[in-house]
Amino acid sequence: MLQPLVGVIMGSTSDWETMKEACAILDELKVPYEKKVVSAHRTPDLMFSYAESAKSRGLEVIIAGAGGAAHLPGMVAAKTELPVIGVPVKSSNLNGLDSLLSIVQMPGGVPVATVAIGKAGAINAGLLAAQILGIKYPDVQARFVARRDEVRKKVLEAGELE
Amino acid sequence: MLQPLVGVIMGSTSDWETMKEACAILDELKVPYEKKVVSAHRTPDLMFSYAESAKSRGLEVIIAGAGGAAHLPGMVAAKTELPVIGVPVKSSNLNGLDSLLSIVQMPGGVPVATVAIGKAGAINAGLLAAQILGIKYPDVQARFVARRDEVRKKVLEAGELE
Amino acid sequence: MLQPLVGVIMGSTSDWETMKEACAILDELKVPYEKKVVSAHRTPDLMFSYAESAKSRGLEVIIAGAGGAAHLPGMVAAKTELPVIGVPVKSSNLNGLDSLLSIVQMPGGVPVATVAIGKAGAINAGLLAAQILGIKYPDVQARFVARRDEVRKKVLEAGELE
Amino acid sequence: MLQPLVGVIMGSTSDWETMKEACAILDELKVPYEKKVVSAHRTPDLMFSYAESAKSRGLEVIIAGAGGAAHLPGMVAAKTELPVIGVPVKSSNLNGLDSLLSIVQMPGGVPVATVAIGKAGAINAGLLAAQILGIKYPDVQARFVARRDEVRKKVLEAGELE
Amino acid sequence: MLQPLVGVIMGSTSDWETMKEACAILDELKVPYEKKVVSAHRTPDLMFSYAESAKSRGLEVIIAGAGGAAHLPGMVAAKTELPVIGVPVKSSNLNGLDSLLSIVQMPGGVPVATVAIGKAGAINAGLLAAQILGIKYPDVQARFVARRDEVRKKVLEAGELE
Amino acid sequence: MLQPLVGVIMGSTSDWETMKEACAILDELKVPYEKKVVSAHRTPDLMFSYAESAKSRGLEVIIAGAGGAAHLPGMVAAKTELPVIGVPVKSSNLNGLDSLLSIVQMPGGVPVATVAIGKAGAINAGLLAAQILGIKYPDVQARFVARRDEVRKKVLEAGELE
Amino acid sequence: MLQPLVGVIMGSTSDWETMKEACAILDELKVPYEKKVVSAHRTPDLMFSYAESAKSRGLEVIIAGAGGAAHLPGMVAAKTELPVIGVPVKSSNLNGLDSLLSIVQMPGGVPVATVAIGKAGAINAGLLAAQILGIKYPDVQARFVARRDEVRKKVLEAGELE
Amino acid sequence: MLQPLVGVIMGSTSDWETMKEACAILDELKVPYEKKVVSAHRTPDLMFSYAESAKSRGLEVIIAGAGGAAHLPGMVAAKTELPVIGVPVKSSNLNGLDSLLSIVQMPGGVPVATVAIGKAGAINAGLLAAQILGIKYPDVQARFVARRDEVRKKVLEAGELE
Repeated sequence: MLQPLVGVIMGSTSDWETMKEACAILDELKVPYEKKVVSAHRTPDLMFSYAESAKSRGLEVIIAGAGGAAHLPGMVAAKTELPVIGVPVKSSNLNGLDSLLSIVQMPGGVPVATVAIGKAGAINAGLLAAQILGIKYPDVQARFVARRDEVRKKVLEAGELE
Repeated sequence: MLQPLVGVIMGSTSDWETMKEACAILDELKVPYEKKVVSAHRTPDLMFSYAESAKSRGLEVIIAGAGGAAHLPGMVAAKTELPVIGVPVKSSNLNGLDSLLSIVQMPGGVPVATVAIGKAGAINAGLLAAQILGIKYPDVQARFVARRDEVRKKVLEAGELE
Repeated sequence: MLQPLVGVIMGSTSDWETMKEACAILDELKVPYEKKVVSAHRTPDLMFSYAESAKSRGLEVIIAGAGGAAHLPGMVAAKTELPVIGVPVKSSNLNGLDSLLSIVQMPGGVPVATVAIGKAGAINAGLLAAQILGIKYPDVQARFVARRDEVRKKVLEAGELE
Repeated sequence: MLQPLVGVIMGSTSDWETMKEACAILDELKVPYEKKVVSAHRTPDLMFSYAESAKSRGLEVIIAGAGGAAHLPGMVAAKTELPVIGVPVKSSNLNGLDSLLSIVQMPGGVPVATVAIGKAGAINAGLLAAQILGIKYPDVQARFVARRDEVRKKVLEAGELE
Repeated sequence: MLQPLVGVIMGSTSDWETMKEACAILDELKVPYEKKVVSAHRTPDLMFSYAESAKSRGLEVIIAGAGGAAHLPGMVAAKTELPVIGVPVKSSNLNGLDSLLSIVQMPGGVPVATVAIGKAGAINAGLLAAQILGIKYPDVQARFVARRDEVRKKVLEAGELE
Repeated sequence: MLQPLVGVIMGSTSDWETMKEACAILDELKVPYEKKVVSAHRTPDLMFSYAESAKSRGLEVIIAGAGGAAHLPGMVAAKTELPVIGVPVKSSNLNGLDSLLSIVQMPGGVPVATVAIGKAGAINAGLLAAQILGIKYPDVQARFVARRDEVRKKVLEAGELE
Repeated sequence: MLQPLVGVIMGSTSDWETMKEACAILDELKVPYEKKVVSAHRTPDLMFSYAESAKSRGLEVIIAGAGGAAHLPGMVAAKTELPVIGVPVKSSNLNGLDSLLSIVQMPGGVPVATVAIGKAGAINAGLLAAQILGIKYPDVQARFVARRDEVRKKVLEAGELE
Repeated sequence: MLQPLVGVIMGSTSDWETMKEACAILDELKVPYEKKVVSAHRTPDLMFSYAESAKSRGLEVIIAGAGGAAHLPGMVAAKTELPVIGVPVKSSNLNGLDSLLSIVQMPGGVPVATVAIGKAGAINAGLLAAQILGIKYPDVQARFVARRDEVRKKVLEAGELE
């Protein structure tokens, strides 16, 4: 098995339905990754040790998904030098607006690279991780470009309606 | 000096302007407290050790104020058995709506007792701490009641306009 | 039967679906409680007498749930010296944002300890009541801590996905 | 002095700046009124006795202004058979959106006739009171109509810009 | 048939599902009314003649329901001296927030007595019409009071959960 | 004087500060226009006759600006076959979000071509009127294109910062 | 086949469900049009060439629908002198509020004629295109007027409820 | 001069006040960069050629700031394989909520790494660029870590209030 370069974490097992989209993209682009439920509020010590050890364990990017008062991405970002991508998971009452604001409105000093609410965001988290790794690993960038070209071709073909 | 019963913490020195209202109430009600800047994002380890040691150091209630992606109250709540009161500090762009949602929308399992945005919230955080302590310390409750009666009297006197 | 320490009230029978989560937590933590429909708008006098007599009847914490223009928690808080926890029940049109703002944005002087919208909030209202009582009753605090440790263990076990 | 037909109340003296617009309209339309600070949260018993006695004291319409978690109009409406007009006073953080939702989103059974946020709302509260009284008192309706015609004439004259 | 005192109008037949709640209340309180689809945008001239003739046809209160860019209540208010009650009908995309703001945020000079979004609002529109008429017709006020007492009794009976 | 092709109307003289930006663009592009205060709520009959006669008076596009419960653009659109451009004027409390929703959320059947809130919107209303006229009058289109090229050139020159 | 005067484009095939309403109106009013999927993000070069060539290919109005971070209408507007109508497609998480703001809040210089969120907006986009073309083609305007009169007649007939 | 690794672009010169914070961070961390005004709407061709040539010109990360209907970050992302960081510039009417949603809500396929609204976001854009580059350039990562440690030390020293 390859050394994972991306750590995909989420605040609860119910987030997996969303976050598996990120993993599907990483699979497709052959980016090795690991995945785990790490809850900021229910397993705070695990979260800290996960974030603190991420670089030394060989990870280079972290993708963190959470909903509601979504503290996981920002707290992980506070404990690692790696870039952290935050996925606002759709919440049951406020449609993910609370998740989005809790993740994106970080104070100056600790960035979280925030993507869209829900599944589109999870897909883009996978792609953004590949883009970030792509500046170091040309083959990842090549696969990213190839995928994008493939998508474009499909859209162009599907463009004629009916 | 008396053993502090309330720990008043805030994410940044700029939150002091808001949070000093909580301290003024605690002073007025003679509730001993300590105050400190503890940043979830810039001093995460301090935050954890503060929360973890809070009970053993004799604290009984924590008041935590933060703005924007306000993670301090919820993360402290994840690390202590004490009740945590969260004050959403007004943020520069979204008027504290981001602070409010980041604090109040906690997942089931880790409550934060959230009060109003800004100074009214800080005042109420001080009063709520006194109410909580008041169920254990009758004299604190008595001072809370006396203050409320005093306020009521003033409102009644001021009620005749012009 | 034990003397109830917590009064769980709600604005309408339709709120019970949400508020029973708070009661389930209190049952689990062996905190004696009473429950009742008390409507701010349809039974205002009952609300006032309930709030006024709460302390003398032995209650130490009140949990009040309501939706829409949710006045119950704030009005009860205006009539008792006990800490009041407000649960914003999800409303049919604005998803509970109206309930949340009506409960949390109290003016300086009368705090309501507000939790999240809906069932997560009701769960947390039960837990917060336990935390508050826990500073006076060590066995309640012990059960709160034991439950939290139990949850943590389960999350850690469930953390390996698939 | 004439028997007041309208009671103008507000949650705090700071609301007077807004609510005096309602009084100015009532003065202009020669509708006798009384005005008073009645706080739902700080003087709840006064609020209840005010509302309960309103009809027997000869009032026919109540105008109630409040901001933030604005409970005054709805609670007064719960305690009187008179029509209650609610004015959402602009709040310092959320621009009166919290005031508006707290006043307008009343549950079925207890209406509050809600007008716009702030001074425009206070003006309209005065006018709406006059319209309501106008169906009983033709002279009030006549003065309402005369004022409206006057305003129309001024707008028509001012319509040519520069 | 009795002379209708209330005109219940709505912007489209699809609003009837909501607005029939207002009519049910008027039936219950024996307030004679008429009902009609009058669209501000699709039948503007009908709207104007309806509003203009309302008083001379014997109406004393108008209830107008509309959704989205809801102009019906405000435009009718611009054309009549009668009090106009506006019901924000729930819209398909923005849950009635657009309807609410379009109705309530009237400029100073032309009030609309706005009630809650959706069915609760329609119920309250019927009740508010009765309250307004009640200051002129004591029997309507008496039936309003009797209904409210009835509701209160039911809530008190239902208050004991399970 | 040339026959006006565009009618620029606004709900109140206070809207002129915003709407003069539309007129400045029309001046710059040599599009003849007329301007007038026409209030939906205070001068409803004038509004209707203005809209009804617009085409026969030679107008081809109407620009209507209004704030708050902004009914002017939609009501004018209901009374004319000409394209109507709506400018949401910034409101004092809700920053023009109420104006925007009141203008843009028109029901199927009566479109309003809505532009941005405030001065940017007024500028764009002038440009959009020119674009619409431009499909009939090539010289207007030519001046529109020339202006855009000019702006582009300036942006390119200014692009080097410091 | 007639020369298309309107280009109906959309960001994805999933937008067709909404955008076909615009086409249905154009069919009904006998306005020749073409339709195509053109994605701002996945086929940016196609979008630019589509917009750049639109006028020379004989188009006179463009209708562009998109959801979420909806850039298609604004970017097409940046590349053509033709009037561009933007339809905010309802998004899965934020109900189209993101689509609306992304389309309507264009900076001064590049207008997009924005209509309502979703199907009502698509219908109105078709009608607005006809109104715009109507100032040049009297027969299109005549059909627009005839359709509107027809709708009015139907509303008037349906106005008697039950 | 060093080969720039980061391209800092913004939609207008007025965005510089915000975006200079990103440049200050890059200066501080010794990350070579270039900066330029590139407007999506006023200079669309420049934007495309900038994005298309970015990689071949040696850039590895792009930071793009824009306000209102902020299309620059997303459109640049559509035209480059490099990671794009989007900074929502505070807008004059909606406080940057429109900017945020226009940037973050990208459809699956084209990610933009979004940071907070305004200056805090610009600071974090600079830091995030450094984190991304840091996985390839250990010295950049080292300077990022050193800066963070420095900030932490200062916060710890400043933590004692008064």
